[in-house]
Amino acid sequence: MTDASPSRPSFAGWLGTTNTVTRTFLAAGRIPGLINLGGGLPAPETYPGEEMAEIARRVVAENPAAALGYGPIEGLPELRDALAATLAPAGATLSRENVLVTTSGMQGLDLLGKVLIDEGSIVAAQFPTYLGALDAWRPRRPHYRPMRLEDPEFDAEAALAGARFGYVVPNFSNPTGRLVGLDLRRRLAGAAERTGTWLVEDDPYGGLLFDGAPLPRIFDLAGGGDGHRGPVVYMGTVSKQIAPGLRVGWIVAERPLIEALVTAKQGSDLCTSGVTQLIALEAIRSGIVERLRPELVALYRARRDALCAALADLAGEHLAFETPVGGMFVWATVRSRGIDTDRLLAACLDAGVCVSPSSVFDPAGQNRLSLRLNFTLNAPDVLAEGVRRLVVALKSVSVPGR
Amino acid sequence: MTDASPSRPSFAGWLGTTNTVTRTFLAAGRIPGLINLGGGLPAPETYPGEEMAEIARRVVAENPAAALGYGPIEGLPELRDALAATLAPAGATLSRENVLVTTSGMQGLDLLGKVLIDEGSIVAAQFPTYLGALDAWRPRRPHYRPMRLEDPEFDAEAALAGARFGYVVPNFSNPTGRLVGLDLRRRLAGAAERTGTWLVEDDPYGGLLFDGAPLPRIFDLAGGGDGHRGPVVYMGTVSKQIAPGLRVGWIVAERPLIEALVTAKQGSDLCTSGVTQLIALEAIRSGIVERLRPELVALYRARRDALCAALADLAGEHLAFETPVGGMFVWATVRSRGIDTDRLLAACLDAGVCVSPSSVFDPAGQNRLSLRLNFTLNAPDVLAEGVRRLVVALKSVSVPGR
Repeated sequence: MTDASPSRPSFAGWLGTTNTVTRTFLAAGRIPGLINLGGGLPAPETYPGEEMAEIARRVVAENPAAALGYGPIEGLPELRDALAATLAPAGATLSRENVLVTTSGMQGLDLLGKVLIDEGSIVAAQFPTYLGALDAWRPRRPHYRPMRLEDPEFDAEAALAGARFGYVVPNFSNPTGRLVGLDLRRRLAGAAERTGTWLVEDDPYGGLLFDGAPLPRIFDLAGGGDGHRGPVVYMGTVSKQIAPGLRVGWIVAERPLIEALVTAKQGSDLCTSGVTQLIALEAIRSGIVERLRPELVALYRARRDALCAALADLAGEHLAFETPVGGMFVWATVRSRGIDTDRLLAACLDAGVCVSPSSVFDPAGQNRLSLRLNFTLNAPDVLAEGVRRLVVALKSVSVPGR
Repeated sequence: MTDASPSRPSFAGWLGTTNTVTRTFLAAGRIPGLINLGGGLPAPETYPGEEMAEIARRVVAENPAAALGYGPIEGLPELRDALAATLAPAGATLSRENVLVTTSGMQGLDLLGKVLIDEGSIVAAQFPTYLGALDAWRPRRPHYRPMRLEDPEFDAEAALAGARFGYVVPNFSNPTGRLVGLDLRRRLAGAAERTGTWLVEDDPYGGLLFDGAPLPRIFDLAGGGDGHRGPVVYMGTVSKQIAPGLRVGWIVAERPLIEALVTAKQGSDLCTSGVTQLIALEAIRSGIVERLRPELVALYRARRDALCAALADLAGEHLAFETPVGGMFVWATVRSRGIDTDRLLAACLDAGVCVSPSSVFDPAGQNRLSLRLNFTLNAPDVLAEGVRRLVVALKSVSVPGR
């Protein structure tokens, strides 16, 4: 025994592979006066606080054992039944055995990683890829095969063959805001059926459609029938439409996959909170989501318009972008290849605005030409001021010699 | 493309290592009329339903953004502060930076596994070992070094040296109900400090003490001072004292470990529900736990006495056991080495009673001589009837030729 304290055991190897930009980005949330275009937060003023408070009281008072006790790992049967009814493809049926309630969409990603990834397993992921999925799967150490869906040469069958699963966010992808078109959805569904590879359709934003009619889900285009059979795995959440603070999401899939996910969930948190499941069930049953959606969509559409107008007016010289038809994000790409968006982040923080650099959405951490900008959290005038600050940052890193 | 559906990709390798007894045991919960001595459930009649319903309404109405929005990964600052104040060792201080809120104690175990276990890492675990910990760590594929604390030759320093961490449930261990004595606590604390190995003290049952005075935590015997420094990691939960349905637990540790756990939690569920954190905070602040504890302890003490009396009166010929001074379980060991408790489980289910066989608490699945019996869920007369059914099962497997 010596005076010097012995060192602690080392941490698991994957912790050495996390991205330092993510840490910078998280720390930035604490800077006073910062305009946050970097996150993916709903507008808190849209949460139906009073109504949810009364629902919370009622569900706990009326179902104390289900609210406060341990529940089934799979989720409360009534919630699974309601989700099966709501999420079944037209003309098909789903049963509760196809539905797993998860403690947020993020937990759904974590469970899929636990069940489908061994070290070095191939994951075919829409590129760029949702940061949260990369975070969820990092401890499992997969190998990523990027799917560049907008590439005219994209071959869905080659992409999925030999992979443990494919991963797409077809409605207003995080981070790009892009909508995957109907033809591509059909090709992905067909490729999943032909190869047998699971295709995870992550759909947190589907309800946030601003322009045009909704497209069928990939889940609608494959499998179906009497109880779900097929390789498409459909994921959703109440986070973007009611409230993220409930931490309630779901996975819909073939029974054998649900059973494996249940084994994983048993060792992750045993079951999702009965309190939050009952609140989510009551919110779905009482039609709050459908009732509030028009107002939510109008608010977010106006904010998207404000962000895109400011980008076009103030930043068009520096940035190219497409106007998304839904979701929460605009993806902007620098016109000058001389700008590294990881370094731009530092200049943005100095200028009082936070953005998400593209490297965090690249499994290899290489892509340094784009930014993800969120438009749902802030009011139109704040968005415009955020873009003004972004332009200050862009100019500071564009000047030769700086 | 052929008519036959292509097969799905294989599941992750660890799923092939799960215990089939666990599945039998879970399925048993659905048999009508079955007396469940196999689980680890609190008595649902002890949940303060009305009071919690009113708390739920108030916290959501008064803090809609914190309740319904995304919160910090680490947990709500007010809850972390309250836990730091409550859990600090006497004469020492803790700060919120030492506290991580987890979505149940089970998630705490999952996060510790993610952060501390690589494939083949050594985990020194109190033997027999809590089933939930084995479930949580199975996807990480550790190597277990069993710690047989009651062995007079037990050498704490040899047990911890070279391990990533040690794991103990010193208060009324799950599954054995045993209390780790003061001398052994001191030796474990000293061995952790000398080796530097993390020592995880999992304490869900500490408040359920029926006889005698509480012992200091291992956490009190090591480290401490101005902000927590030391290798002991202290875990707790509201599940056994307020309500498991909140799914709120905590980990207290040195800052570097908390920071690594935050990275893991980010990819597990982003944050714990604001609704359930605020309810837990209000339940702690308003003193519900302290107010309800005497009644809860009296109820569970009477049930422990009823189970132990029935075991002594009816099953003494077949089973040896010790009366636990707290917690939720009695550990009973067969007197005849000819009885395999995995096979006894099948006979128990036929007789209408569920028990937990010892194999599920053995990382190697070998121990087939003992049973874990829960006494908190059922009333005294039901416990006695459960023991009668257990004796029927014991006799059926004890008869030569059966």
